[in-house]
Amino acid sequence: MIILKIGGSILTNKDAVSEVDTKSLKRIASEIKSSLDNSFKELIIVHGAGSFGHPPAKKYKIGERFDESEYPQKRIGFCETQNAVKKLNMYICEAFIDEGLPVVAIPASSFMRATNKRITEGNLDSFKRYLDKGFIPVIYGDVVLDEELEICVISGDQLIQYLAKNLNPDMVVLGTDVDGVYNKNPKTHDDAIFFDKFSSLDDLDTFEGTTNVDVTGGMVGKIKELLYLADLGIESKIINAEVENNVFKVLENEKVKGTVISRGN
Amino acid sequence: MIILKIGGSILTNKDAVSEVDTKSLKRIASEIKSSLDNSFKELIIVHGAGSFGHPPAKKYKIGERFDESEYPQKRIGFCETQNAVKKLNMYICEAFIDEGLPVVAIPASSFMRATNKRITEGNLDSFKRYLDKGFIPVIYGDVVLDEELEICVISGDQLIQYLAKNLNPDMVVLGTDVDGVYNKNPKTHDDAIFFDKFSSLDDLDTFEGTTNVDVTGGMVGKIKELLYLADLGIESKIINAEVENNVFKVLENEKVKGTVISRGN
Repeated sequence: MIILKIGGSILTNKDAVSEVDTKSLKRIASEIKSSLDNSFKELIIVHGAGSFGHPPAKKYKIGERFDESEYPQKRIGFCETQNAVKKLNMYICEAFIDEGLPVVAIPASSFMRATNKRITEGNLDSFKRYLDKGFIPVIYGDVVLDEELEICVISGDQLIQYLAKNLNPDMVVLGTDVDGVYNKNPKTHDDAIFFDKFSSLDDLDTFEGTTNVDVTGGMVGKIKELLYLADLGIESKIINAEVENNVFKVLENEKVKGTVISRGN
Repeated sequence: MIILKIGGSILTNKDAVSEVDTKSLKRIASEIKSSLDNSFKELIIVHGAGSFGHPPAKKYKIGERFDESEYPQKRIGFCETQNAVKKLNMYICEAFIDEGLPVVAIPASSFMRATNKRITEGNLDSFKRYLDKGFIPVIYGDVVLDEELEICVISGDQLIQYLAKNLNPDMVVLGTDVDGVYNKNPKTHDDAIFFDKFSSLDDLDTFEGTTNVDVTGGMVGKIKELLYLADLGIESKIINAEVENNVFKVLENEKVKGTVISRGN
């Protein structure tokens, strides 16, 4: 089984609220379809919230502690965010179905729970059943109830980790808008150093402690989730899904530039 | 707790595929909000698939037996239907949130399973948790995996029955586009007789056996689901949600023309 995450930044236009990048979406859907046509693969797709989910989550400060008196507003914020990411998911599924991919959405908000922003409950039987019947389950960055904070946001990156930990996939791939992990943002720093591989949480500590870390938005979060998987013996790879054919090639086990996160050796 | 179903026929334009009736939607949302503002009520909303879900479900004959060779097409049909009803749900939630209703969608396809078109599995803990936190859970006519038929459609009416059976609500209301149950379609027959009350499955048998039954589309199905509830001691009421203020009044326990389905006495 393969778990493939597609970053929200690739699927949505960053500079506009709630606008899908239809060209990227269609290209990625078609690359996945080509690979599945080559040979059958069990696949789960995770996608981010992109410019759909972030604005309401930020506006209502979902995930921050709040007073009881703020609950009505927070509830509406939760609902707005849920509906916004559902809208993105609906566009993504539409494009994927148009390419012939049998994608079934299983939103985190309908069955998962968190404690202090970490998923602590989420029965994955539905995923297994849909996979058994040849479907492609799709899950995405979403809002869920939280035992400590009442409500919180669960990122697509945390979802990969949770799914991988519980479903033991053969391959975990994160399609982002950069080639992998750099010590600085490669888009703004010409001297950014690229990492082919990360091996443990210790590497991350050294990396953070000794360099002026300026990784791209959310990259540290991604690495932490993936290093946790590496510690469980599950290897993952960060690739650039904006480069044409990268998604196809990685699914076909062909060589693609990227950062492998594994336990070492 | 109140379970309120709003028929797909009220929320969508019957003569157009995938078109929301925004005026009805806004009016009903505002009636619900007025009632909740009057006094707190625990509420679950169920909505139909309307002109969004029916065309793909019909096109792909979801729920009919099929050969293994047809599976790829059936899968795509399942996904198209799921995405179409998700789209309707997204519009409905948007309108409800705009009115200040904290609606959280919990799609049947993400956690329910059926056997021969009847729900045989569906843990409702998420519903209880969202209700406890002051949210309004929303579920809708959807597609699910079926142990016998591989895939099937679950109607909003069956969902009401399943929810009511398991959550023991104080009130079950079906908002439709007619005043209640008639022996003939009141829209096409001036001599249609109105039923204030239905008491048991026996009544239905008599009703079906002795008259030329021409009830409006799906009404027999609705009655069967509700009589099953009546046999469990759960009363329900079919009202016309197209009549202004009917939804508000029924939530306020005011008198509204309709058909009560109950065990009798």
